[in-house]
Amino acid sequence: MRKIYHYNNPRNVGSLPKNDMDVGTGLVGAPACGDVMKLQIRVDRDTNTISEVKFKTFGCGSAIASSSYLTELVRGMSLEDAGRIKNTEIAKELCLPPVKLHCSMLAEDAIKSAIKDYQTKS
Amino acid sequence: MRKIYHYNNPRNVGSLPKNDMDVGTGLVGAPACGDVMKLQIRVDRDTNTISEVKFKTFGCGSAIASSSYLTELVRGMSLEDAGRIKNTEIAKELCLPPVKLHCSMLAEDAIKSAIKDYQTKS
Ligand code: FES
Repeated sequence: MRKIYHYNNPRNVGSLPKNDMDVGTGLVGAPACGDVMKLQIRVDRDTNTISEVKFKTFGCGSAIASSSYLTELVRGMSLEDAGRIKNTEIAKELCLPPVKLHCSMLAEDAIKSAIKDYQTKS
Repeated sequence: MRKIYHYNNPRNVGSLPKNDMDVGTGLVGAPACGDVMKLQIRVDRDTNTISEVKFKTFGCGSAIASSSYLTELVRGMSLEDAGRIKNTEIAKELCLPPVKLHCSMLAEDAIKSAIKDYQTKS
């Protein structure tokens, strides 16, 4: 099923306080098109799982949909599982055409970078 | 009426070819939050009206809604009328709270800047 609602109704657009010790921020760019994605996670230290996710994307509809889908996918996940998400998974779920694969790559890069940022704070 | 659909279903996310002689590009930032909006218009030279509009916003939900609303508002407008749009108009239409006024300001700045860019090309 094409998750059309992530195109029509992006979830979790916004920001978390980036200096919060429990928040990890990933800010990544797509060399292919110059677009940018910021993805922020809040981590529950006791369980090492993601409790909240926000994003802002300067990008096309596919980049918005990819990040919106990702925010719902990783909420409740362990950092380990979230770090293993592949952009091809996102692209498949959203039925992205090949020319839009780099948009989903932005989402994969962003979650990896947010996890890394959180871990450097711990 | 609150135009909720601009929050839920942003219209006209994307880009136009920025070197096209009929396209004007506005790229502006919001000092209040560091967010960024790109707005592009295609102008019909015969009638001096806006025939197509696209945007990308690295911003909050209010910025996305403001630019989405603006894209529909200015399509078909003369450059003169589009250049007179006030952010307060957008904010009122979308029922933005005072703290989100700067998000609609981004949309006003962006359309002005896109018109200016088009005019420097003519
Ligand atoms: S908070 Fe930055 S544009 Fe709305």
